[in-house]
Amino acid sequence: MPDGPERPALQGRSSSTRLDSYVDRYAARTRGMTASEIRALFSVASRPEVVSLAGGMPNISGLPLDVVGRAISDLVATNGPVAMQYGSGQGDPALREQICDVMRLEGIEAHPDDVVVTVGSQQAVDLVTRIFCDPGDVVLCEAPSYVGALGVFRAYECDVVHVEMDGDGLVPGALRDAIAVVRAAGRTIKFLYTIPNFHNPAGVTLSEERRREILAICREADVLVLEDNPYGLLGFSGEPRRAMRADEPAGVIYLGSFSKTFAPGFRVGWALAPHAVREKLVLAQESATLCPPAFSQLAISAYLRAHDWQGQVKQFREMYRERRDAMVEALDDMMPAAARWNVPDGGFYVWLTLPDGLDAKAMLPRAVSARVAYVPGTAFFADGFGSQSMRLSFCYPTPERIREGVRRLVGVIEEELELRATFGSGGHPFALDRGYQAPRPDLT
Amino acid sequence: MPDGPERPALQGRSSSTRLDSYVDRYAARTRGMTASEIRALFSVASRPEVVSLAGGMPNISGLPLDVVGRAISDLVATNGPVAMQYGSGQGDPALREQICDVMRLEGIEAHPDDVVVTVGSQQAVDLVTRIFCDPGDVVLCEAPSYVGALGVFRAYECDVVHVEMDGDGLVPGALRDAIAVVRAAGRTIKFLYTIPNFHNPAGVTLSEERRREILAICREADVLVLEDNPYGLLGFSGEPRRAMRADEPAGVIYLGSFSKTFAPGFRVGWALAPHAVREKLVLAQESATLCPPAFSQLAISAYLRAHDWQGQVKQFREMYRERRDAMVEALDDMMPAAARWNVPDGGFYVWLTLPDGLDAKAMLPRAVSARVAYVPGTAFFADGFGSQSMRLSFCYPTPERIREGVRRLVGVIEEELELRATFGSGGHPFALDRGYQAPRPDLT
Repeated sequence: MPDGPERPALQGRSSSTRLDSYVDRYAARTRGMTASEIRALFSVASRPEVVSLAGGMPNISGLPLDVVGRAISDLVATNGPVAMQYGSGQGDPALREQICDVMRLEGIEAHPDDVVVTVGSQQAVDLVTRIFCDPGDVVLCEAPSYVGALGVFRAYECDVVHVEMDGDGLVPGALRDAIAVVRAAGRTIKFLYTIPNFHNPAGVTLSEERRREILAICREADVLVLEDNPYGLLGFSGEPRRAMRADEPAGVIYLGSFSKTFAPGFRVGWALAPHAVREKLVLAQESATLCPPAFSQLAISAYLRAHDWQGQVKQFREMYRERRDAMVEALDDMMPAAARWNVPDGGFYVWLTLPDGLDAKAMLPRAVSARVAYVPGTAFFADGFGSQSMRLSFCYPTPERIREGVRRLVGVIEEELELRATFGSGGHPFALDRGYQAPRPDLT
Repeated sequence: MPDGPERPALQGRSSSTRLDSYVDRYAARTRGMTASEIRALFSVASRPEVVSLAGGMPNISGLPLDVVGRAISDLVATNGPVAMQYGSGQGDPALREQICDVMRLEGIEAHPDDVVVTVGSQQAVDLVTRIFCDPGDVVLCEAPSYVGALGVFRAYECDVVHVEMDGDGLVPGALRDAIAVVRAAGRTIKFLYTIPNFHNPAGVTLSEERRREILAICREADVLVLEDNPYGLLGFSGEPRRAMRADEPAGVIYLGSFSKTFAPGFRVGWALAPHAVREKLVLAQESATLCPPAFSQLAISAYLRAHDWQGQVKQFREMYRERRDAMVEALDDMMPAAARWNVPDGGFYVWLTLPDGLDAKAMLPRAVSARVAYVPGTAFFADGFGSQSMRLSFCYPTPERIREGVRRLVGVIEEELELRATFGSGGHPFALDRGYQAPRPDLT
C-alpha cells in the first residue's frame, strides 16, 4: 500500500537556524534542504579506525594510472585549447557517440543527438526534476530509494510516494495501486523513478518479466519512467540486463554514469531522453552550468579510446564480487538468525533488516563507538520509515575489513538484543526513536 | 525609472512545442527556459568565414600547455586516486585556500570555510537563486545585465527589475528608487545582482564612490548583494579594484571564477558567502551534483602551484587590452557619428548603441550575411528592451579580425541608414521588430 499523497513532505530543521540572519529570506524549497544522514557520516567514516560500510565510493585503486596519465597529457598536448575551453551545453559530440556504444551493451539503440551530458548522473536527476516538477507534484519511487534522488525531489518540493519492492524489484501490483490511489486523490504523477539493476540501497534487481509488466503499466497509465542505471555493467553473473529504455524509447528517460565504470572524480554522467525532453534538458543544463566540463568529457573520451575499458570493468566486477562474497559469508557466519538480508547479484549494497524491536538509526552511535559505520534505512525513505533496516556497502573496504566490520556490527547488535532482553524495550536509552510504524511497505 | 514589478516575466515559446508529447507535463518554470539569442548564435559564429564579435569565449591560446600537461600528469601519478574520486560537496580544501589568496588581491579577507566551489560561476548564480528565490520574488539587476544570470532568474520564475546604469556603473539614486517602488508594490526583493567590474555586457566599471553608496543603500534597505566578478583581475590599468565584499562581509555574496584567469573548460568557479548561507549552498550543491569535479579542482590547484599564474594573467590583460584598442580604434575610425559606445577599462566587451531608428536584433540577419556577428542588446534585458544596442566582444578574435569585423558591421549599418533615408522607417523589411519603447533606462 503506497504512502498517501496527503502526507506532507518530510522537512527537517537546520541546526544553524538561530545563527542565520537570512533565515526568513530563503526560498520555500530551501526548508527541504537538510544535511542527509549519509553526509553526516562522511566525517565519521573517514576516520581510519572505523570500518565504513556506509559510503558508496567506488574502489578505483585498480585503474591504470599510467594509462590515464598518458591519455590526459596527450589530450593537453594535442587538443588542450579545446579541452580547456567552453564546450557545448549538450556535451561533447564524440563522447556522446561513445556513450551510445556503452548503452548498446544493454540493448539500447540511441542517437548521440538524444544524449545530454551531465555533471554526474546526480545532475541528470536534478535537471529532469527541474523541467518536470512543480511543487506538490508526485514522484513515485521504490521503497526504499536512492537518498540522493530523494534529496532532489525534496529540493523541488515534490511529494514522494514509495512503492513496494521485494526480491524481484518493484512490485507491479503495488505500482498499479499507487498510480490509482494518487490519481484518485487528484494529484499529478510526474514520473516513476526506478533503479532496476543492483538497487541502491536495496541490492535487488528487477526481473525481466517485471520489466515488461512495469513498462506496460506505465505505458497504459501514461507515466514517464526515469530509469537510473549507474550499476548496470557491474553485475556478478551473466550478460548485462536489458535496459527498460531499450524497449520503450518514447516513455523512458535513461540515466547513466561513468562514476562506477571509470571514476567519479570527473563528474560525467548522462541522460538519454526523447527528443523534445532532451531539448529542455539542454536548456536547463545551460542555465545550470553553461556547459558540463569539457576537460572531464575529453579526458573520459580519451580513456575510452586508449584503454580496454570493458576489460577494466570486468576487473571491477570481479573485485566487487569478491567483496560481496566476503560480506555475505560474514553475515551468514556471524549475524543473529533473526536478522535478514539479501544477496545482491551486482552493484555495491546489501540491505539488512534487524531483528524485531531494534532500530538502526538509534543504534548508530553505538556502532560508531564500536568502530563500524552504516547508513540507517530511514535515509532511503521520504517519510522516516525504514528504521529497522540499514544499508551495508561492500564496495570500498577490503574483504578483510568487511569481515571485521560485520564482526563489530554483530557485536553491537548482540549487545542491543541483550539490553532488550534485560530491560525490555522501554529501558533502552534510544527507545524514543524506535517503533515508528507507518502503513507502508518495506523490504521486510 | 525602474521596470514596474507588475510587468510579467518574459516567456518565450519553444519551436518544438508541436512535436512534444510531454508539452503539458513540464513544470511551470520550464516555460521560461528558451534558447537564448547567444545560444542560437553559437552555430553561426563558429563558421570560419564569420567574424564573431558575439561570443564571450576567453582566448586561452597563451596558456603554457607544457606546464599544464606536466602539472596534470603529475597529479594523476601522485594523487590520481583522490583526484578521480568523489570529493567534498563544498570543494577541495586546498583549492579553497588558494581561492582565498586570489580574492585577497581584491582586498577580501576570507576563510576557506566560507568558500563553496561551483561548476563555473554560472552554477553559483543558479545555487544562490535556488536557495533564495520563490516564484514571483524580485531580483534587481543592472540594465543591461548578464544574459546567463537573467536565464537563471527566469528559470526560477523570478521577476527581474532592471536598474539604470551609466558610465560609472549602477546609479545609486535609481537603485534607491527601484527598492522603494518594488516594496511599495508589496513585492519581495531577494537580492541585487551586480557585476561591478568591466560589466558584461555594458563594459563599464562601478566607481569607488558608488561602491560605497550602493553598499550603504543595500545595508540600510537590508538588501543582499550578489557581486559577480569574473573579470576583476582583467583590468587594463592600475591595481585590481577593491571588491564590494571586502567592505561588507555580512551583506555580500561574492562570485568568482577561474574561467577567465585560467581556463573555462574545467568549470570551476566559487561563491564566498556568509556562514549560514554557505551551509545552504553546500546542501544545494550536494543535491545538484553531489560534489563539483575533484579532477578539475585538483588540476587548477596544481596549475596555481606550478606556474606564475599572476604573470599569466598579466599576459592575458595585455592581450585583451591590445584587442580592446583595436576595436575602439576601428570604431573611432569607421563607425557613423550617430552611433555611441564606451571604452571599457578591462574585461571583454564594448556596448554599442546604434543611430536612432536602427534595431540591432532586426539587423542581425543582414550582419550575418555580411559575415559579422554580435549579440543584440535585447538578450541582456528581461523584457525585450535594448533593441537599439548590441554587445561587441573583443576577447576572442585577433586585432586584424576585429578591425575586419567592425568594417563589415559598419557596412551593414550604413546600408541600413541608407535604406531608412530612402524608404523611411515603414519601408524596412524588419520594421515590425523595431521601435519597441519601454519606460525604462538604457545606457543611451
